[in-house]
Formats: sequence, C-alpha cells, structure tokens
Amino acid sequence: MKNTRINLVKRPNIKITADIFEIAAEETAELSDGQFLVKQTHMSLDPAMRGWMEPDTTSYIPPVDLGAVMRSSGVGEVAESNNPDYPLGTLVAGMFGWQQYAVCDATSARAMPAGIPAEAILSVLALPGITAYQGLFNVIKPKSGETIAISGAAGSVGSLVGQMAKIEGLRVIGFAGSDEKCAWLKTIGFDEAINYKSENLVELLQAAAPDGIDCYFENTGGAAQHAVFNQMNAFGRIAVCGMIGDYNTDTPSAGPNWVNIIKKRIKIQGFTMPDHQADWGNMAQKMGAYLMKGQIQYRTHVIDGLESAIEGINLLFSGGNNGKLIVKL
Amino acid sequence: MKNTRINLVKRPNIKITADIFEIAAEETAELSDGQFLVKQTHMSLDPAMRGWMEPDTTSYIPPVDLGAVMRSSGVGEVAESNNPDYPLGTLVAGMFGWQQYAVCDATSARAMPAGIPAEAILSVLALPGITAYQGLFNVIKPKSGETIAISGAAGSVGSLVGQMAKIEGLRVIGFAGSDEKCAWLKTIGFDEAINYKSENLVELLQAAAPDGIDCYFENTGGAAQHAVFNQMNAFGRIAVCGMIGDYNTDTPSAGPNWVNIIKKRIKIQGFTMPDHQADWGNMAQKMGAYLMKGQIQYRTHVIDGLESAIEGINLLFSGGNNGKLIVKL
Repeated sequence: MKNTRINLVKRPNIKITADIFEIAAEETAELSDGQFLVKQTHMSLDPAMRGWMEPDTTSYIPPVDLGAVMRSSGVGEVAESNNPDYPLGTLVAGMFGWQQYAVCDATSARAMPAGIPAEAILSVLALPGITAYQGLFNVIKPKSGETIAISGAAGSVGSLVGQMAKIEGLRVIGFAGSDEKCAWLKTIGFDEAINYKSENLVELLQAAAPDGIDCYFENTGGAAQHAVFNQMNAFGRIAVCGMIGDYNTDTPSAGPNWVNIIKKRIKIQGFTMPDHQADWGNMAQKMGAYLMKGQIQYRTHVIDGLESAIEGINLLFSGGNNGKLIVKL
Repeated sequence: MKNTRINLVKRPNIKITADIFEIAAEETAELSDGQFLVKQTHMSLDPAMRGWMEPDTTSYIPPVDLGAVMRSSGVGEVAESNNPDYPLGTLVAGMFGWQQYAVCDATSARAMPAGIPAEAILSVLALPGITAYQGLFNVIKPKSGETIAISGAAGSVGSLVGQMAKIEGLRVIGFAGSDEKCAWLKTIGFDEAINYKSENLVELLQAAAPDGIDCYFENTGGAAQHAVFNQMNAFGRIAVCGMIGDYNTDTPSAGPNWVNIIKKRIKIQGFTMPDHQADWGNMAQKMGAYLMKGQIQYRTHVIDGLESAIEGINLLFSGGNNGKLIVKL
C-alpha cells in the first residue's frame, strides 16, 4: 500500500512550526508472521505530544527520534493480516503515529469492541481515559462529599475527571478558558465552572468552593494553580497531570511557596500515562460502562486530513479547540 | 511552689520580639487525684514554635492563645505527686511550656527511661526524633543505594535524618549555612555537605550527587530547594517538613515550576509531627537503640535560664545555633 507519513525532522524552538516536520511517501513493508496492516481512520492530538518532541531524555517517555514518524495514538481497522486473531476489518487502537497505514502486531494494537465510535474510543477510552482514571483514582483517591477543582476542565482529560468525580459524589469545580467552555461544563454536570481569565479568580473560587478544596487535578498551571493552592484544605491531594500553560514558553511560571504544603499536609504527585498501562483493563471496564449508560459526555473537535495535524496541534496550546482534538483521515 | 512562666501576649509581626511576651509569677495549682507536678530542667526551642504563635487557625495545630504560657516541649522530674505511677524523681518529657513547673497527668507527660541525659531526650527522642522518623520512613520511604539531600542538615531534625539514612544505606548530602556546620556533618557520617550560601550551588550539588537525587528532606526552602528540585530523579520523593527560611519574612519565596513534577513523577508531601504521635513507640525503639549503640550523634546549643528563651529562639532563624537549641532551667 502507498503510505503517507509525517516525520519529525527538527526539535521545536518553543512553538511548534511546520518546518520541524517533513511529509514522506513510501510503500508499506511486507507483513511477517503475526503482523497486520492497520489503516488509520482517526488520529488523536494530545498535549503530551509537545513533550515527545523534546530532546530531553530524562522525561518519562523517550523522545521521538529525528527522522521518525511523529508519535500519536489512533484508531483504525485491519486492512491486511497475517494474524488470525486480527481478521480484516477488526477495529483497533494503538500508537500508530502520523501516517495513513501502520504495520502492527498483537503488542502494538489492541482490538476494540465493535460498535463503539472511533471518536468515543479516542475521547474516552484511549489516552484521555487512562490518564483521567489514573490521576483521579490512583493519585487523588476521591471521597464522596469532598470538593475537587480541575484546571483545563474542558479538555479531554479534565472533562472526564470532572464527570467521574461527580459520579463519585464530589462537588466539582472546573476552570476553562472561555465562557462557552464554562457553559458546556455546566451542561455535563460540573457544579461550577470558572473562566480562568477572570480578574477576580480568587473570589470566584471562594464562592464556588465555600468549604475549601480537597482535591486538585492540575492540567494547566498558571493562575488557577495559585488560586486553588491557597484554598486547599488539610490533607489535600493534588494530581499533577499537565502544565499546558508552560509547554510553549521558555520562561516557566513560578510555583507556589511550599509553606502551605506543611501547614495543610498537602500531597502533590506527578504522574504520566505510560507508567500505568497495566490499569487499562480496569479503566476500560469502568469507563465503558459509563459510556454505555450515557453517564459520560464528550465532545470532539475534528479536523480533516493527515496534514491538518501540523497546524492543528497548536489549537491545544492556544485553547482554540472545543473538545477532543481529532484528525480524521 | 512558686512558678515563673512566660506568656504569649501578642502575635509576632514577622520577627519574634521581646514585647510579645510577658513574664508572670504565680503559685502552682493544687494537685488533684492522678496529677503530679513536674519541675522542668530542660526546655526545647524548635522552629515549629514560630507557627504556633500565629493566629492562623487553619494550621496543623491550634495557635497558642494570647495570655497563655508559650508552648514548648521539655524534660523534667516529678517534684510532687498524686499519682503512684509517677513517683517523686521520675524523669518525664512533655509539652510543659515556657515555665519552671507544670501540673501534669498521665496524658500530658511521658516517663523516660532513667539514665538517658535530658539533652539526648530533647535532641533525639522528642520532637526532632519523631519528626525525622516520620518524614524519612513514612513519607520518603528510602531504599538502600539511593541518594538523599537534606536542607537544614545541621539542625536537630536534619542531622537525625541524615544519620538514619546513612544507616539505611543511602548516599547522604546535607546543606547547612556555615562551613563549620558542614565540617560537623562530615564528622557524623554525611557523605557530602554543602554550604547553601555558596555561589556555585548547582555545580556543587551535581558533583556531590553524580547520579541525581532520589529523596529530599526539606527543612528550609530557598536556594537549596531549587537546586535539588532541578536534579531530582524519576520517582523522587520529597518530604516537606519545614520552610525555616520563610517563617520570618512577609514575602515568601516562589516555589519551583511544576513541570518537573510530571516529567519525573515526583511526589511531594507535607507532614507535621502531631499527626503521627502514635508512631512514638516505633520511633523511640529504633532511635533509642541507635543512641545506645553510639550510631547517632547529636550536639546541643544550651542557653541558660527561662528568660533566655525570649531572645534565644531567634537563633533558629538566623542560623546562629550550633546544635539542638535547649534552655537549661
């Protein structure tokens, strides 16, 4: 098959620009025993991809090699097969990268239950789901009656965290970057939603969380971080999942002073998805059930064609996407 | 008995000054059944006392009421008794406050094994010991072969943490505020000691910890915090015990940006001694054994007379004490 792929050829200099990629065409490789060819139909764009472009080898996942296809997760169907467990037409998800076709085996593609839309897989069951599940249940460990604040709440991870926390009986407060996103958060069950660009952020948060904040799911850094940190209750737990506000700057913002960490005995813990792949089964069972029962809403922001990824990924950092950012191939 | 005590009568305005205290004389109260009178011989001065003077009721321990005796831990002996379990002469430790005599019962004074010097009790088995034990074993959970950095390492807590970590098989790096303190740290077994006032702190730390830092016991904040934070290894654990550099300022220093928390999956956890009183037995057993075997060194900085506490407590914040600060009555 003729495959078009997008390779990373330079490291980004703060912002992601078109010149760090090259578009290449090739014939797909011959399949050996056990392999199958996936025709990718939907490709996920996620904030974590910014980190994968960095040369920093001390990060949690190796960088994408220069000259290699850009790493990403996606959904597709089996188009050729040398593996009887993956017959033609099987719906699969995996880290297929920025390309039309990917040669896979059983370790690099996971079969998905037929009948779940590809957009739901990428929005709920893939990276966002495992990330939200891990941070909420394994790091924060929420208790019914507590109050949780979530930054980047209208993002794919944040919106799942909020809805799961609501199901667990928490008071849920979301931060987002536009009034439209805040309005959407209220429609999916958030108790309060605050535009983090508001001038009176501290007062808005005090009004939204009169009993203080027990749990914080951090996706962004910035103004929300400081407002929440100063209103944390004793024995508060903070899961640090993303600092999207800082990924594209060369002057990272200062964090809060640590005195409150002592006074309130706060626990702050960073986590990343690849450490917890083993949890996928638990997550999929829980989230799949929510999805079937209509307890979890999601929305998608779909852009068209492989090459739209190059400009489109920047929507994640400008806040220009309304919903899970997906490239339809 | 005639008792002299020092009451807190004002909240400190940044620095601790003599005018926030009053010296009062009174007759000790009559003992009821089960009570006994402790004649305090040694009184401990600890950084945490600064926090107890604050009106902030959201902190981990209620503030000292205005007009009440200043809170502190100490050692003494039973001078009068209505409790057969605490005969005259029994060596006891407890939160006796800034006074010569304290009326106690079995819940407010703990009998100490005879033969341990009062200074060893206050330096190793009381507040410093339970604090060091809790932070090291319950928060950091050190593993043999790891590298630990400790700020305020020449302080009563820091010096115990370092010596216990060494016994557990870690590489131990201490920060202190004078070359004399650094030299002392080497004599008690620290692998490396760094004066945090050095200009090339980052390079000194890199040389001292060529494999990076796995564990950090934070007592001070400031320059050491930032240098260590940027050299933490993946899955690093940070116990936040004190921020002594910030207690006496009205402009707390900025903390580090949180991006590293994600990349390195760092856990940062604040803790305070009163949450873990129940651990006293385990701690005393472990530390007592170390003490008997000569595996734990301590040094004391003794000042004389009840009223010397008023000026003396500021030694903790200027770094002017060399060893556990104790008032001898």
